Amino acid sequence: MSVHVLEYTFEEYTEIVKKFHGAAAPGVLIGGFMVDAAIRNLPDGILYDAICETKSCLPDAIQLLTPCTTGNGWLTVIHLGLFALTLYDKSTCQGVRVFLDPEKVESWKEIKAWFFKIKSKKEQVLELINKEIEAAGTTILSAQKVEILPEAAQKKHKGKIGLCPKCREVYPLDHGGICLLCQSNTLYAHGTHI
Amino acid sequence: MSVHVLEYTFEEYTEIVKKFHGAAAPGVLIGGFMVDAAIRNLPDGILYDAICETKSCLPDAIQLLTPCTTGNGWLTVIHLGLFALTLYDKSTCQGVRVFLDPEKVESWKEIKAWFFKIKSKKEQVLELINKEIEAAGTTILSAQKVEILPEAAQKKHKGKIGLCPKCREVYPLDHGGICLLCQSNTLYAHGTHI
Repeated sequence: MSVHVLEYTFEEYTEIVKKFHGAAAPGVLIGGFMVDAAIRNLPDGILYDAICETKSCLPDAIQLLTPCTTGNGWLTVIHLGLFALTLYDKSTCQGVRVFLDPEKVESWKEIKAWFFKIKSKKEQVLELINKEIEAAGTTILSAQKVEILPEAAQKKHKGKIGLCPKCREVYPLDHGGICLLCQSNTLYAHGTHI
Repeated sequence: MSVHVLEYTFEEYTEIVKKFHGAAAPGVLIGGFMVDAAIRNLPDGILYDAICETKSCLPDAIQLLTPCTTGNGWLTVIHLGLFALTLYDKSTCQGVRVFLDPEKVESWKEIKAWFFKIKSKKEQVLELINKEIEAAGTTILSAQKVEILPEAAQKKHKGKIGLCPKCREVYPLDHGGICLLCQSNTLYAHGTHI
């Protein structure tokens, strides 16, 4: 039987990842199995939000396989540098956290070399890593039942907006008398209207 | 002639947005025209990164229409609460910033009511707003040539990783002796292995 990531074959999922992420990155492929494992451990038919504990790769697996995206607010990326994700019931805050388990990775030479950065990017052969990822499936993962703390699950309301008197763009008034970019521009050296 | 968002008709783009974002949200539709305007003002054939100045809606337009995603590191979302995005040449840091121009929105009743939150979500009629968005196209936008400051364009390298002695997961060693989640867990009330 061929390996599946939710409703997709591993090959189909790999193609979807290439198109969106730009490459068949091991982190997004393993992320597919992580999302799959999380969903299988959640009750059917619930509305869930997602937390991603790393900004690398994993957010794209969540965006491709769940209704949660960066722009719709159902995915929160928290920069902990941990290769873990959580899907949780919006109404009960009960969820499932799935992580790539260092102990279980031990027996997979290529995945281990990638995950522990034993080989440099140049030395890694993507095809070999991804073959192992397909063979390993969910066996390199561990899962926990978790309850999300209310503060972490709470959505901030955007509050009142107004015109920044300096740049004349619309900004959240609780940022102060002028917008954050006018307060401290750490982004742009200069700008000229086109 | 029908209205286009890059290679898509407005209807096609609306369907793509619905599928990814979950709804034909005005912010993602306007975002389509913003990405379109930015790309048309960039030289052909360059590799570019994206900055999004709000976490609401707009990141999804960027992810759907450019190679830049949350997980591949080419999209940076900065929480300024400004409805603006920038695409910039990775090698020169020269780019184009596009924003929804409050002055130009004035003559569009429904877009104005949505953007300035004059009508509550309940009072808004999505079809009416989106009809105006299609009719307005890029005419409600303004664009600036910008140069990204080197610090804003710089990618952080992830550095060395190791096993957290407490939770036994892999984490970035420069976070300290144990991982950030073990240092201060603001996410989970408790977790039990499945």
